[in-house]
Amino acid sequence: MKSKEKILNAALLLYNEQGIRNITTRHIAASIGMSGGNLHYHFKHTEDIIRALFDELALAYDGLMANAQSVPLDLSAIAFLTESSFKLVNKYRFIFINFVEIGNWIPEIRDAYYQLIRKREQQFLKVFENLIANGIFRDDIPTSNKSGLVKQFFIINDFWLSHNELTDQHVGEDALNEYQNAIDVLLWPYLKRHQ
Amino acid sequence: MKSKEKILNAALLLYNEQGIRNITTRHIAASIGMSGGNLHYHFKHTEDIIRALFDELALAYDGLMANAQSVPLDLSAIAFLTESSFKLVNKYRFIFINFVEIGNWIPEIRDAYYQLIRKREQQFLKVFENLIANGIFRDDIPTSNKSGLVKQFFIINDFWLSHNELTDQHVGEDALNEYQNAIDVLLWPYLKRHQ
Repeated sequence: MKSKEKILNAALLLYNEQGIRNITTRHIAASIGMSGGNLHYHFKHTEDIIRALFDELALAYDGLMANAQSVPLDLSAIAFLTESSFKLVNKYRFIFINFVEIGNWIPEIRDAYYQLIRKREQQFLKVFENLIANGIFRDDIPTSNKSGLVKQFFIINDFWLSHNELTDQHVGEDALNEYQNAIDVLLWPYLKRHQ
Repeated sequence: MKSKEKILNAALLLYNEQGIRNITTRHIAASIGMSGGNLHYHFKHTEDIIRALFDELALAYDGLMANAQSVPLDLSAIAFLTESSFKLVNKYRFIFINFVEIGNWIPEIRDAYYQLIRKREQQFLKVFENLIANGIFRDDIPTSNKSGLVKQFFIINDFWLSHNELTDQHVGEDALNEYQNAIDVLLWPYLKRHQ
């Protein structure tokens, strides 16, 4: 594994376990037996490490969406997309738990997220149209509700972990099941068979 | 105005404007021309101020729910409840923007929130049943979806501001309209007339 990758993996682990305010580049270097100088050669500032992890997440999500657009969409494809989405959110959980703080601290990330969410909105609207065309979703949904539903998906997707932290604190399979349930409830009334 | 009330109003203003990490009890005291000793007489720790503000919020929300349960529920009552709810969230915005952090920092608040959300769930389920009985909501919603929808309302209600911070950053009337729109989209497919 390359040094850069090693640093990012170690940083992700520490941020997820101990939060962004308790971890310095020194902790990250020490956890993989690397000198501070060597880490500094790869990442000048903490912000650069967090930015690189955010980019990893965005790239992985791009792959997920490309995959979703290449298969015929039915309910099992949606369940697979939901599961993969949750696994990504959970892998990079420190970002979602501290999203507003990170966005204020590193404006580049906020800007990148804002661009990204607009791209995703278009992608999800296409998924939506596909599900209507395939007879899975009802076909009488007003246009304004479609983008509204996509926004709702983003809020649930991006803040479900925060809600969970404040309430049930589910972990592992339980967390996945609860998240999946939240998405199912969101989609339930849009299914043609429940019209 | 009593000193205690003065301190809480000043703290709310400063936390909302400048965040919880940049404001000390010293700043709060200075902003109302009070000595640090006098403030300390009323609130021993920063945590006590934040706890008191959380309690104010919870109490105001209790009033809102009591009111909602005392009037016949129709769509205009729902719109009024939504608007009042948003105004409260916006008034105490620093709590919602930093909710996970505050919950980890002050476990009493996390515990109180957890109790509260379970009480609210029961209250909202009653509102739900009322809307079904009044012929406004469709009557074929599975029981598990009802509590799922209530959870969804909590996630949208509690994290809409965070999502807004990261994206459009609407303020004032615009923010209220966008929030109201998010709730309308959530309810749209549950209305009997859209079945």
